[in-house]
Amino acid sequence: MILCDVGNTSVDLYRNGKRTKHSADTFDPFSISEEVYFISVNAAFDRRVAGLVNWHDLRECVVWTKYYPTMGIDRIAACEAIEEGVVVDAGSAITVDVMRGGAYQGGFIALGLRAAQEAYGRLSPALDVSWNFEVDLAKMAKNTPDAVTAGFLAPLIAQIQSLGKPVHLCGGDAKMLSRFFPDAVVDEELVFKGMKKLIEKGRVC
Amino acid sequence: MILCDVGNTSVDLYRNGKRTKHSADTFDPFSISEEVYFISVNAAFDRRVAGLVNWHDLRECVVWTKYYPTMGIDRIAACEAIEEGVVVDAGSAITVDVMRGGAYQGGFIALGLRAAQEAYGRLSPALDVSWNFEVDLAKMAKNTPDAVTAGFLAPLIAQIQSLGKPVHLCGGDAKMLSRFFPDAVVDEELVFKGMKKLIEKGRVC
Repeated sequence: MILCDVGNTSVDLYRNGKRTKHSADTFDPFSISEEVYFISVNAAFDRRVAGLVNWHDLRECVVWTKYYPTMGIDRIAACEAIEEGVVVDAGSAITVDVMRGGAYQGGFIALGLRAAQEAYGRLSPALDVSWNFEVDLAKMAKNTPDAVTAGFLAPLIAQIQSLGKPVHLCGGDAKMLSRFFPDAVVDEELVFKGMKKLIEKGRVC
Repeated sequence: MILCDVGNTSVDLYRNGKRTKHSADTFDPFSISEEVYFISVNAAFDRRVAGLVNWHDLRECVVWTKYYPTMGIDRIAACEAIEEGVVVDAGSAITVDVMRGGAYQGGFIALGLRAAQEAYGRLSPALDVSWNFEVDLAKMAKNTPDAVTAGFLAPLIAQIQSLGKPVHLCGGDAKMLSRFFPDAVVDEELVFKGMKKLIEKGRVC
């Protein structure tokens, strides 16, 4: 059994505990003959696998009444992995979702670190600075790199901290953010764990 | 006497309590024969007024040791207008600065509302949604417009509120933000008030 997480630009395969990443544009779904359970936020990819009997879309296993119709399936998969706490998936966007007793409480979507840095750069050459990830967020900034870095990170991190514990971090920038959450669990396989749970729960799907 | 606030795209003139806005590209500084006291973040504009004896750059009146060398002169002007509290200038960027007893404490720079909306839109068509400025920031979002609007606004507003009072709002989005700060003072002439104080203090400049 292969698990597959399809984003807008990449295809992330999980087979026997090992991950491989491929370009979403060039990856050929016909190249896999085993059973594949996938989630996808990529409509073009969905069309390519639509006729393949060994590709199973885990959307069909989701109890959608727990969530909301336009919620990203990757966020849902990460939420399904836990019963309790805050999920922070720090990728191109930073999604933050809260689960209590297995019930979805809601969440919010911030810009990803790269998207935010690019947006500052577009505003003005003066704000197109390297971020200082060593910045002390408890202090008021008195230089531009700190003012920009803290301007994005300090509000976001305080807001996440206000949501309670435990905090589960996943996504490409999880390690970068973990320095601001000393008690957080960094789990880069959170989405795949949630996918496994969806498969186990949803034997009907 | 005319006060003039020059941004990257616009020239904002203040004459006898009346404001007029002009395009920075087409405005002709030679068209004014009166004394003009200006601040500018626009290097191209600075070169155009460099030889004009009636154009006085208020940079020369700033006590720079109070601030920091790369701090925007418009932020400094707004800070000079107050002795105590938090200045939120909500324009293309949202700058947040704290003054206590006339002393600058530091600040941070968030993206402006428009820049943030555009950055979400660039991330994914799914996030290119109209923002819901009526969103209840105290609740966790369960739909995409709320998740995006609250994802940007809730952390930022909580962070500003944590800095104390009074909050002084200026800039093009001041009114929009004021609904989240019931006690805030909206003062669209804050920058000009600060410029007047700079002129009064700095008779030497």
